[in-house]
Amino acid sequence: MSRFFSRRFDSLAAYTPGEQPQDQNYIKLNTNESPFEPSPKVIEALNNSEVAKLRLYSDPECKLTVKAIADYYGVESKNVVLGNGSDEILSFIFQAFCDKDTPVAYPDISYGFYSVFAQLYGLESHVIPLKEDYSIDVDDYCGIGKTVIIANPNAPTGIALSLADIEKILVSNPDNVVVVDEAYVDFGADSAVNLTRKYDNLIVVQTFSKSRQLAGARLGFAVANEDIITDLNTIRFSTNPYNINRLTLLAGEAAINDKDYFENTRAKIIANREYTALELKKRGFRVLDSKTNFLFAAHNTAGGEMLYKALKADGILVRYFNKPRLSDFLRITIGTREQMDALLTSLDKILSGKDDNDA
Amino acid sequence: MSRFFSRRFDSLAAYTPGEQPQDQNYIKLNTNESPFEPSPKVIEALNNSEVAKLRLYSDPECKLTVKAIADYYGVESKNVVLGNGSDEILSFIFQAFCDKDTPVAYPDISYGFYSVFAQLYGLESHVIPLKEDYSIDVDDYCGIGKTVIIANPNAPTGIALSLADIEKILVSNPDNVVVVDEAYVDFGADSAVNLTRKYDNLIVVQTFSKSRQLAGARLGFAVANEDIITDLNTIRFSTNPYNINRLTLLAGEAAINDKDYFENTRAKIIANREYTALELKKRGFRVLDSKTNFLFAAHNTAGGEMLYKALKADGILVRYFNKPRLSDFLRITIGTREQMDALLTSLDKILSGKDDNDA
Repeated sequence: MSRFFSRRFDSLAAYTPGEQPQDQNYIKLNTNESPFEPSPKVIEALNNSEVAKLRLYSDPECKLTVKAIADYYGVESKNVVLGNGSDEILSFIFQAFCDKDTPVAYPDISYGFYSVFAQLYGLESHVIPLKEDYSIDVDDYCGIGKTVIIANPNAPTGIALSLADIEKILVSNPDNVVVVDEAYVDFGADSAVNLTRKYDNLIVVQTFSKSRQLAGARLGFAVANEDIITDLNTIRFSTNPYNINRLTLLAGEAAINDKDYFENTRAKIIANREYTALELKKRGFRVLDSKTNFLFAAHNTAGGEMLYKALKADGILVRYFNKPRLSDFLRITIGTREQMDALLTSLDKILSGKDDNDA
Repeated sequence: MSRFFSRRFDSLAAYTPGEQPQDQNYIKLNTNESPFEPSPKVIEALNNSEVAKLRLYSDPECKLTVKAIADYYGVESKNVVLGNGSDEILSFIFQAFCDKDTPVAYPDISYGFYSVFAQLYGLESHVIPLKEDYSIDVDDYCGIGKTVIIANPNAPTGIALSLADIEKILVSNPDNVVVVDEAYVDFGADSAVNLTRKYDNLIVVQTFSKSRQLAGARLGFAVANEDIITDLNTIRFSTNPYNINRLTLLAGEAAINDKDYFENTRAKIIANREYTALELKKRGFRVLDSKTNFLFAAHNTAGGEMLYKALKADGILVRYFNKPRLSDFLRITIGTREQMDALLTSLDKILSGKDDNDA
């Protein structure tokens, strides 16, 4: 820390992303990326002639990409705003709809960035424990009178709420914004996008990082009532009007328009998830009911940290959280069938107390 | 505005970027883009196989690109941080080094985003008028005891300060951060990058948008003392750890490594600027002494707004600021020699009171 750093950040603990090793070939099941390449339409769209146009600024209004997303979800362009990843959208939301008079409420176990934003922007946080079974108690959020942020499905648990539950929270907090972070919704949960037509206090946040294979392009978006989007654009144009680069705008447009590829790849992920969950259960794991592209699983005897380290030593990266209530678990991204079989084989070795080094 | 928008933004006036028409072919001399394509090395680097890797997150440490920039400037990787455009870097700086106890000081005529950030983050601003001749009075900033931000060369004037002047400001404000925004420095001014070794309160901000032909890729960076960079990374990892997408990281690395292309293209811009300045003066323009890739020029009889509109009607976009002390001027980006000749021909028509419609 320099002697110039604002004192208000004395205790700011930045977000720790999952390991992104740049120099070794792991089976990478630790940051919920897709095992599939982006749509061939994306590869086609990002051609040399578009790269040559990088000399020009991107469209600050992101018109074509916004329209493609709006069309896909059956809303209007005025209901959509884009971010440099959904993290940036969340950052805009925390700035726009929270302040010293409006605290933020979120579950104690959820996406780790919510508490970082709350610290960064000096907000009072109302952190609500999950139930014993790791699910969200909807009643905790009803009539809470704060900005509510819920990941649905939740991370790292993978558990989804029903739309009826989301609606209950919306109806009981008419004067507060309710944010539903749907980073993983395409893998089996119900999106609240259609509810944005009915509730002016709802913001749905999504990302192209998981189900649309574009984690490295950085594209997220929010769908909401027109006035909410206007506010988010006010923050966006006060932060970084050219927040989305030209190639990512093109990639996003091509990806959302390739519906077949999207349906095909997400169906594979869901099938691989169900297969892996079953196989993990056979091996003595407790596996939470996931509607995402990852599984959150704890073995009945082997500890989470040991398994994480042993898998890493065997060339397989999964995510481990050394935190209360989470430290028995591994968060395992769903990859290809071959990758999942490699994981299971490695687990068999580890759990039987043997590894290659013993051979 | 929605009824949920934080009251602290009641009077927030977002930044207005220059026009970015998406559907018409203008000679675009309004947002200081390069008329040249990115280096052929950039086109080569952003190939299909890299696009296919977009399924994976980018390196949050941006190691290779940071190292290439550090090597170029003869500093260490620990002295460099990257932003999604230099606007994002500026946003991090305003958050890290300004607060209710530390106001920010900048010139009244400068990059319009400084006042937007000051509003967004609720900062007290000390706005210092330029001198009559549109230059910065260095003495105004000496011993000011606030976070200082100066664009060097300044925008939209194009006028540069000497390094001796920058050093005077640094020495006289040892307990405050001094930010030198060098977006345009490669076109003829002296960079303060080397002074970062000597002064722990200096931050130099640069961009790949102008002299490296990558406006549409969004890449900016700061060079400073290691502790300052640590602070900026704390803000970065608390905002958007994957702030730079994969392709932009590659583009930046390729661009900074192609020194010949950089030298060649910036020499052309400088030559075209000097040519255009001379020709404008011949036509009755007052032209400020520019060390940038644009000229700030006012005609001795024709008004700025009239000229802006007449040029636009003739298919040439320049930037016009309808503000006190600026409204007589046009800000004209330096393009190719052919583009500058088209501008001069159009001005000749306009100034002689004739245009194509009269023919």
